[in-house]
Amino acid sequence: MNRKQLIQQINKKKSYLCVGLDTDISKIPPHLLKYKNPILEFNKQIIDATQDICVAYKPNLAFYEIYGAKGWETLEKSIQHIPDSIFKIADAKRGDIGNTSTMYAQAFLKNMSFDAITIAPYMGEDSIQPFLEIKNKWVIVLGLTSNKGAQDFQFLKSKNKPLYQHVIEKCMEYGTTQNTMFVIGATKEEYFKDIRQFCPDHFFLVPGVGAQGGNLQKLSEYGMNKDVGLLVNATRSILYASNGKDFAEKAREEALKLHAEMKQYLKLYKK
Amino acid sequence: MNRKQLIQQINKKKSYLCVGLDTDISKIPPHLLKYKNPILEFNKQIIDATQDICVAYKPNLAFYEIYGAKGWETLEKSIQHIPDSIFKIADAKRGDIGNTSTMYAQAFLKNMSFDAITIAPYMGEDSIQPFLEIKNKWVIVLGLTSNKGAQDFQFLKSKNKPLYQHVIEKCMEYGTTQNTMFVIGATKEEYFKDIRQFCPDHFFLVPGVGAQGGNLQKLSEYGMNKDVGLLVNATRSILYASNGKDFAEKAREEALKLHAEMKQYLKLYKK
Repeated sequence: MNRKQLIQQINKKKSYLCVGLDTDISKIPPHLLKYKNPILEFNKQIIDATQDICVAYKPNLAFYEIYGAKGWETLEKSIQHIPDSIFKIADAKRGDIGNTSTMYAQAFLKNMSFDAITIAPYMGEDSIQPFLEIKNKWVIVLGLTSNKGAQDFQFLKSKNKPLYQHVIEKCMEYGTTQNTMFVIGATKEEYFKDIRQFCPDHFFLVPGVGAQGGNLQKLSEYGMNKDVGLLVNATRSILYASNGKDFAEKAREEALKLHAEMKQYLKLYKK
Repeated sequence: MNRKQLIQQINKKKSYLCVGLDTDISKIPPHLLKYKNPILEFNKQIIDATQDICVAYKPNLAFYEIYGAKGWETLEKSIQHIPDSIFKIADAKRGDIGNTSTMYAQAFLKNMSFDAITIAPYMGEDSIQPFLEIKNKWVIVLGLTSNKGAQDFQFLKSKNKPLYQHVIEKCMEYGTTQNTMFVIGATKEEYFKDIRQFCPDHFFLVPGVGAQGGNLQKLSEYGMNKDVGLLVNATRSILYASNGKDFAEKAREEALKLHAEMKQYLKLYKK
């Protein structure tokens, strides 16, 4: 999916919601355990219940790798269940030397039909470049993350700039607004203003709303640009809204709450 | 495997060689293609031919993920073929928020029988901690990598220290010499001296010897400590030493050349 198509979807649905598919078997409703593949069944019902009000899905690979080969099958089948009009993000946080990154690019962006993959930037340009070579596909580079450990290195200052700014600025040179996004954690909404100063046009993938406590209003106010420029992810608050047979319905209700907020913020803050 | 057992294996075999199992189907001998699982067959023969002269194997996950669920099966079966006395490293370069890292730790260090996993440090402490909680297992954190892109961020200076030094020193606080190693690229052998100043006791996993051109003698001279403290990886020079029916034999010959050098360096440089 290219940038124009993504923006069209956002404007059509009046939503910049991404639903995380980090499905944990210990948290899904017990009645699903009788299915041959409970996680796949759960994912399908979540997708069916939310696909008209979100623009992206983002499975985190860890939740599938834990089941080895069977987990990969579940992931592949879950992705196949998502309509083509929805942006599909492999939250894989990969990053390796060039020839290895080429293999990862093939695995996620060609063999599986993901539109984008998250990337850890520590190894620099040749760890990112191979992903950029595939047309209409995206890398989403970790910029400023939402977790506590973000404090350890991302704020280290060099030449008067924090590491996350070096990372974002350098990656803006590698790629373009058409194939590169950044992960900016919602729990750090005060930073969106600063980051938009040096990175006005790129899309940001924003985790941390919902269970992690990020403020959707503030980050939308500070982070939105003329093309919206935000994909805001919620996972646990939606997936585990209910543990009963009504889980998909309740997930939809939670997603609708975020959607209602987003409709408002699109009116208020789209530049 | 704990540190004492690893050191015993190194001293017994007089080897600190790690063989990379980054098996690329386009590079393996054509006669193997008739097997049901050519990559597994190749790995088994490589393992059989080298297991008495190396102390570790390190498959890079990308080379298996490219085949999806089937690739994971191949990985699992390859790992099962490695004797318990040999250190098994998942070159996965993972790193995510705490609850996700817990899933990765379970996937690689418990469900599969890896002894260690490589970790990208960008997200800081809570991305690493869950791996450290499993007894007799290891994290191997990216310190200074062997690729060109290492220049982009790893050398950024903050408080008069390059980022890689901040990473190594901080991770020395999270873990101990018993559960934490660092990746230090062989192509930067001149840095081993400096790094040993602030990190004298930890093991280093050293990629980049062989096809990537790192100098085994120099890095052994500068990097070895009283417990050896090095696992030096070679991949392409060993795996693809021959494209014929003698591939395993030729792989052994290449590994033996490194082994012969290592025996010498153990005499010369072990402190």
